Amino acid sequence: MKKIKVGVIGATGYTGEELVRILVRHPHIELTYASGNQERQAKLQEIFPYLKNAIDLECRAFSSEEAASKSDFVFLSLPHTVSMATAPSFLKAGKKVVDVSADYRLIDTAVYEKFYKVKHTDHEHLKEAVYGLPEINREKIRKASLVANPGCYPTGAILGVLPGVKEKVFMPQTIGIDAKSGVTGAGRKADKALNFSEVNESFKAYKLFEHQHVPEMDQELSRAAGEKISVVFVPHLLPINRGILSTIYVGLQKKMDTAELVALYQNFYKKEPFVNVYADGTLPEVKHAAHTNFCHIGLRVNAERGMAVIVTAIDNLVKGAAGQAVQNMNIMCGFDERAGLV
Amino acid sequence: MKKIKVGVIGATGYTGEELVRILVRHPHIELTYASGNQERQAKLQEIFPYLKNAIDLECRAFSSEEAASKSDFVFLSLPHTVSMATAPSFLKAGKKVVDVSADYRLIDTAVYEKFYKVKHTDHEHLKEAVYGLPEINREKIRKASLVANPGCYPTGAILGVLPGVKEKVFMPQTIGIDAKSGVTGAGRKADKALNFSEVNESFKAYKLFEHQHVPEMDQELSRAAGEKISVVFVPHLLPINRGILSTIYVGLQKKMDTAELVALYQNFYKKEPFVNVYADGTLPEVKHAAHTNFCHIGLRVNAERGMAVIVTAIDNLVKGAAGQAVQNMNIMCGFDERAGLV
Amino acid sequence: MKKIKVGVIGATGYTGEELVRILVRHPHIELTYASGNQERQAKLQEIFPYLKNAIDLECRAFSSEEAASKSDFVFLSLPHTVSMATAPSFLKAGKKVVDVSADYRLIDTAVYEKFYKVKHTDHEHLKEAVYGLPEINREKIRKASLVANPGCYPTGAILGVLPGVKEKVFMPQTIGIDAKSGVTGAGRKADKALNFSEVNESFKAYKLFEHQHVPEMDQELSRAAGEKISVVFVPHLLPINRGILSTIYVGLQKKMDTAELVALYQNFYKKEPFVNVYADGTLPEVKHAAHTNFCHIGLRVNAERGMAVIVTAIDNLVKGAAGQAVQNMNIMCGFDERAGLV
Amino acid sequence: MKKIKVGVIGATGYTGEELVRILVRHPHIELTYASGNQERQAKLQEIFPYLKNAIDLECRAFSSEEAASKSDFVFLSLPHTVSMATAPSFLKAGKKVVDVSADYRLIDTAVYEKFYKVKHTDHEHLKEAVYGLPEINREKIRKASLVANPGCYPTGAILGVLPGVKEKVFMPQTIGIDAKSGVTGAGRKADKALNFSEVNESFKAYKLFEHQHVPEMDQELSRAAGEKISVVFVPHLLPINRGILSTIYVGLQKKMDTAELVALYQNFYKKEPFVNVYADGTLPEVKHAAHTNFCHIGLRVNAERGMAVIVTAIDNLVKGAAGQAVQNMNIMCGFDERAGLV
Repeated sequence: MKKIKVGVIGATGYTGEELVRILVRHPHIELTYASGNQERQAKLQEIFPYLKNAIDLECRAFSSEEAASKSDFVFLSLPHTVSMATAPSFLKAGKKVVDVSADYRLIDTAVYEKFYKVKHTDHEHLKEAVYGLPEINREKIRKASLVANPGCYPTGAILGVLPGVKEKVFMPQTIGIDAKSGVTGAGRKADKALNFSEVNESFKAYKLFEHQHVPEMDQELSRAAGEKISVVFVPHLLPINRGILSTIYVGLQKKMDTAELVALYQNFYKKEPFVNVYADGTLPEVKHAAHTNFCHIGLRVNAERGMAVIVTAIDNLVKGAAGQAVQNMNIMCGFDERAGLV
Repeated sequence: MKKIKVGVIGATGYTGEELVRILVRHPHIELTYASGNQERQAKLQEIFPYLKNAIDLECRAFSSEEAASKSDFVFLSLPHTVSMATAPSFLKAGKKVVDVSADYRLIDTAVYEKFYKVKHTDHEHLKEAVYGLPEINREKIRKASLVANPGCYPTGAILGVLPGVKEKVFMPQTIGIDAKSGVTGAGRKADKALNFSEVNESFKAYKLFEHQHVPEMDQELSRAAGEKISVVFVPHLLPINRGILSTIYVGLQKKMDTAELVALYQNFYKKEPFVNVYADGTLPEVKHAAHTNFCHIGLRVNAERGMAVIVTAIDNLVKGAAGQAVQNMNIMCGFDERAGLV
Repeated sequence: MKKIKVGVIGATGYTGEELVRILVRHPHIELTYASGNQERQAKLQEIFPYLKNAIDLECRAFSSEEAASKSDFVFLSLPHTVSMATAPSFLKAGKKVVDVSADYRLIDTAVYEKFYKVKHTDHEHLKEAVYGLPEINREKIRKASLVANPGCYPTGAILGVLPGVKEKVFMPQTIGIDAKSGVTGAGRKADKALNFSEVNESFKAYKLFEHQHVPEMDQELSRAAGEKISVVFVPHLLPINRGILSTIYVGLQKKMDTAELVALYQNFYKKEPFVNVYADGTLPEVKHAAHTNFCHIGLRVNAERGMAVIVTAIDNLVKGAAGQAVQNMNIMCGFDERAGLV
Repeated sequence: MKKIKVGVIGATGYTGEELVRILVRHPHIELTYASGNQERQAKLQEIFPYLKNAIDLECRAFSSEEAASKSDFVFLSLPHTVSMATAPSFLKAGKKVVDVSADYRLIDTAVYEKFYKVKHTDHEHLKEAVYGLPEINREKIRKASLVANPGCYPTGAILGVLPGVKEKVFMPQTIGIDAKSGVTGAGRKADKALNFSEVNESFKAYKLFEHQHVPEMDQELSRAAGEKISVVFVPHLLPINRGILSTIYVGLQKKMDTAELVALYQNFYKKEPFVNVYADGTLPEVKHAAHTNFCHIGLRVNAERGMAVIVTAIDNLVKGAAGQAVQNMNIMCGFDERAGLV
């Protein structure tokens, strides 16, 4: 099989770096283009010395012409608002695109504009973009030219409640998500609040009820449920590099015990290559998911209170970003969905 | 004023060490006795080299006679079940005792025996023991001979919901506590699961619904409310040394906004020396409380969902253990409640 | 005794914060003025919530007139180059000053200008400034108006080799210092390289042979030895908040064993309140020194190779900065040298 | 090419786990047997949930018959002293063995017995064992049946000084190695001193001059130099999971500058797939090597003092253990040396 030529736009942020790390080992593609906003021109293997044996490729100042001429498939790992200015030229040139930013996730541009504080400038492609959670949209992703890769928090949260929401066992207005994320989720940037000494040996909640990932969760869960769902979402900053643990509280529509709810989840996800439901009320830990594309799920029912707690663990840079982006590429290109992700 | 002679039984665990650290600087007492289960006989300032200028005292193999002869006031910083075998002799000798273990916290010995898996052997003193949360029981503590120092999780949780429970603004059967604790909460012990490499760069929930601190929260909140309250409690292990952040979810009885609930909390705690309610929906972080006896509290109302989130931060070794124990001693001995704790 | 009025200029950096933390508990002074470059006007106890019970003081935008009118004694916790523009007015107004920056440490302004890349603008006061390492200059500090508080690395390094250098048991051109510092040593600032995700789970050497603290070590060790000493110095960045461990390698002039060298060190420092020499080849750890003003020292002789390894541990914010500054104030003001530092 | 059947004896320690992680992705082998001292019988993918898509294999209680019947090639990831009781049966059955323990590294059994406190019981195979540092012994490894995989510290140390020792530019009796290792180096075990709260926010030196890896370094460097070399070695415990940074101090035989010494190193290692020498005095960081089989090397000459500092970074579990073991297998089996390690 001839290898597909792949470009990564924005290869020097944490997600871009993780994309490169995965792609250089991918059996069916060749990484042929990478750009980043580096001060100096440098080779990828100089910027990331662990790539020495894996690739020999210059990380370029971005040029959409050059990127398009060298790539059949493009990952956009750019800040939101920059993606929607960049994607159209690739799409018009017939390239397939996975956008890791938030720009093509929200159907309602008014909501986008409220949370991201800018006007949406690409309504045309927004209409055709597919929300790239394979566990919901695998068939649509297969045919898509533009996939909007989900946010890290929504990935861990949606996968945690989807079976119960689809099967109508949860009361829709009771979903509360207490999520804890490692610091790479905030991106590679200079910020006093992200200084090691500020984050280390501490822990905090932030953006209570106001996080920009809330409308994404509400949109996808409402679609899945066929009725309006709005979640309570409280994110926290964990003093670790990678990983999100989401502790999810839901009210139950009917009496059931842990074994029944586990069985429902295991059945729902039984064909999913990257969702793993633990038996017996065992709970996942961040380290189980780190450096992998898995979403691990554990849960327990509290019968006395008529509620359940569901715990999900993902790596925010893999299933929460770069790994899921590659999973989407695999689906879009007809590869084995696990290729490069085992 | 003549200084009171104080003994610390169990001075080499994390809580015992913190007790010593506080007591050597306390203006109204003299640390006259310390015991610990050290392999070798050693001076406290050799075991903890930072005490060099502060004290010159041998850490002894425990003898209740020696301890009683050298102390007017005794802190028991022992594992549960050991405390109830140790406290009676001090009480009979007329000493005042603060017990840091769980042995005298639960009124109902059946509940104690269910959660701690041993028979309670000191019903006599259990009856007179006072639950040592000054914000609830200050006057009873003043007259007590035996104070049961609260658990670390219950301290952060109870202080977070007490005003709303007392003022009947929360729906009693909606309280959910998502708590995250540093590793010193597990004590100074050899345990593969607490090995640095197992805890670092990870995060997990544990003892879902089953933690031994649940009955303590339920007991004290039910007393305060005058009706049965049972909380949903999910503890997590944070890769930090010290601190507990509790994110508490409650349903509201009536419509109110953040400013009103903050005002209610600020008014409730306005005379409390060690509870600090943040204005304006600002939220506390673990580092605000570390190495202090404060419980910091912040909160926000989600009017759409008719619920509120309350966040509390304490240092599990100070307000959650040794600091609160000294606060109790200050009350029992008629000292300024802040003595040694500023 | 009437309390001395003290001002802290630059109270919101890590060293300034630590100065405030120590000073609010100091028995002989009153903190009467604090300034910082905060965005908003705020009270110190709002910026640092753990100060609630300890002080009620506004943190002001800096005014030298206001500072002088409210303080008898001033700590300058400012970036280098800013201190030398600020100190003169206080000195001319008859205030005593401890400067925590590097501006008054180096006698030779050419060396200062080489390492700090700016012209020195206050030769006048530089001449009278005393290098504030009490273990070397206690008597000079007692009479000084301006004390240049030592750098954090030089404190741990100089105290580690001083006895051997003074007693001529080390070969002067063999001193190598492999030092490892926590991240607060880099100050409270936004810097991509200090982002949590960059520092955590990593470790590196930096500024090999070129660190600005090298001339300070060379100056003070040469003075102490009465001959030119130039050290090899390799600093490293530790993923912890506080603490410096210095592993020091020295060639021995003559045969001696560990016990003899330990005895020499213990004798040299026997009256020092904040230097602690471990017996028997035991070695200090960072946690022994954290949050204290101690310099702990341990050492072992390698007779076969004719050399010794000396390990010192300090808290870079206490003995390496704010604590030593207060120790200097205690000496300058005739207080017990340990006041506020036990 | 038919895949070789591989067994891992001791698959549940940190090194064994890393071996499994690498081997399940290796293109030329099949992992057909794994044993571990688990309490319960379980599948590898249940013990390590991230293996779910990669393998379906039971982790067995060890049986040498079963292991031999299922494997052509065996990795022994066992404590020292256990390996030498286990290896002989595999060797006699004609299997090739890489032993990750220390049992076959030291030629002189008296030295082994001094440092490991047990009698050596397999002199027969010790004689034929090859020290498995490919950069020294590639040709011998190719023909070996038993390879003694190097220790983690010796790997980082030897690779750091080998070029200068072989080329006679270092003074043999001046080599000092200040090494800092992550905590997985101590193995997966319950030990109070390795409890998270003891290691986190601290740092210490240990086993000064006495570490069991010293004779291994001395043996291999003396062989390479053709004269006796004994190093000064000071290991430290870093509060991170993975990685060793070694800061190495050497006296130079002759005048040279940084560029000349870098050139010598780059030339020496120019064909090595897993050694990377940085240009221009740039220095490696632990994170450059983490999760890779690289040894990154940077260095600078201090001409004034006639010495150089060489810094090496490896992942203690990969190049320092499991990765190097697989590199040795690749050589022994005639695979591309990088197979499974890119």
